[in-house]
Amino acid sequence: MPAENILYFGDTARMPYGNKSAATVTQFVREIISYFEPHDPKHIVIACNTATALTLSTIRAEFPHLAMSGVIEPGARAAVEAAGNRPRPIIGVIGTEGTVRSRAYERAIWRRRHYATINSKAAPLLAPIVEEGRSAEDPLVKLALQQYLTPLAQRGMDVLVLGCTHYPVYRPLIEVMLGPAVTVIDSADKCAEDVQRRLRSTRLLREGTSAAGALRCFVTDDAARFSALASRFLGLVIEPPTWVSPDELRAAAAPTEVGLRPAI
Amino acid sequence: MPAENILYFGDTARMPYGNKSAATVTQFVREIISYFEPHDPKHIVIACNTATALTLSTIRAEFPHLAMSGVIEPGARAAVEAAGNRPRPIIGVIGTEGTVRSRAYERAIWRRRHYATINSKAAPLLAPIVEEGRSAEDPLVKLALQQYLTPLAQRGMDVLVLGCTHYPVYRPLIEVMLGPAVTVIDSADKCAEDVQRRLRSTRLLREGTSAAGALRCFVTDDAARFSALASRFLGLVIEPPTWVSPDELRAAAAPTEVGLRPAI
Repeated sequence: MPAENILYFGDTARMPYGNKSAATVTQFVREIISYFEPHDPKHIVIACNTATALTLSTIRAEFPHLAMSGVIEPGARAAVEAAGNRPRPIIGVIGTEGTVRSRAYERAIWRRRHYATINSKAAPLLAPIVEEGRSAEDPLVKLALQQYLTPLAQRGMDVLVLGCTHYPVYRPLIEVMLGPAVTVIDSADKCAEDVQRRLRSTRLLREGTSAAGALRCFVTDDAARFSALASRFLGLVIEPPTWVSPDELRAAAAPTEVGLRPAI
Repeated sequence: MPAENILYFGDTARMPYGNKSAATVTQFVREIISYFEPHDPKHIVIACNTATALTLSTIRAEFPHLAMSGVIEPGARAAVEAAGNRPRPIIGVIGTEGTVRSRAYERAIWRRRHYATINSKAAPLLAPIVEEGRSAEDPLVKLALQQYLTPLAQRGMDVLVLGCTHYPVYRPLIEVMLGPAVTVIDSADKCAEDVQRRLRSTRLLREGTSAAGALRCFVTDDAARFSALASRFLGLVIEPPTWVSPDELRAAAAPTEVGLRPAI
């Protein structure tokens, strides 16, 4: 969707969310959505598996006037499609501790295919490994993937869902390790397709224009560090992000205090 | 110091600190010290290498009426003692990205032994590995330690400082890997001795009593999860911790707002 204008919020001061409680992550997401509200977004994507798993239903109910989606439903739908019409498909899921504990993928998959067998495995080290910038050739990357994937592979697996936006960095290696009989699903990819479909169905998709959209980033920790990481992950040079202080975030989420919230 | 009463604050909602900026970590520590101030502590220990490295001098200047110490000075002193009177000692340091980047150990060691050679290495994955609960027998633990320690060992090493409070969990394995020629320094151990010395020298040490001190814990994320982890790490059952909300923390650090800060 190259014509869309995107506001991206990275909560770099309080990340990772993967091993934190639903109450804590919900409060963080509530603050971020409140901060974005004055920008009048036509759609909000909770583009993190843990935040989607732990907060989407609560946050959606708290902001009924905002269109909102997450990464779990698109990944679950793609997993069910990939399982095809096998009589007893086996679907593996790897994710953070919070995502796996929530059983959000189980619910989303069983809603569509109640006879699927789902084996989930928390892989708490994979996101830190990606953040350290290790390549797929690193023996530690292979060992960690083997340790997390072997128990799933041993129980049989038709589809593996990469249930964290960090993991697709190692998708080629994972596909080699599991062999061609296992379909690997990238929930981030599927999320982008899902958003495009939602925007098109509500006639909000920007298309038929040659004007490129703008990307504007907001972070809670050091802006320079984020710029460096973003160029490594995205392969493009981004505008320096806007630093959002804890006080600004808190003020956005405190609508009852007069004068703190910017007018929409 | 079994007779001392200890208040322990674990910022579980915003951890880890290891890869965050000095400005962000300083704000977090400022809030925590402000929260403790009404308890009138006789001494405050910044019992985290990253927080000590990035914030101690700033925080000490902001709270001149509070006695305060960290984990870096005691570790550096022990490393210099262990180096003995070697003409050209080589000291290795492993720690978080923030600790290594700050060069706090270099400054603290060079102040005492300006001709020491210091080789530092960030080991960002070690703390997450400890938090996942992996044992020293796990091949991934050995591989990670080998990857981080081999470059230090190859350049020669008389002393290794474990510059993060998580690492001593693997101290026996590290000692076996490096052999008896390398002295391994646990900065947490040395920190406790340092605090005892400071309290004794100001006649504030509680001793000569058979009454056991109390441990009271405060956390920013889920209390039940902390209790479970604490019993694994400390090997003792602790009282349920007090949950501190973001609003309470923020109020503590905002002394100009009338009525928000509890009277001392």
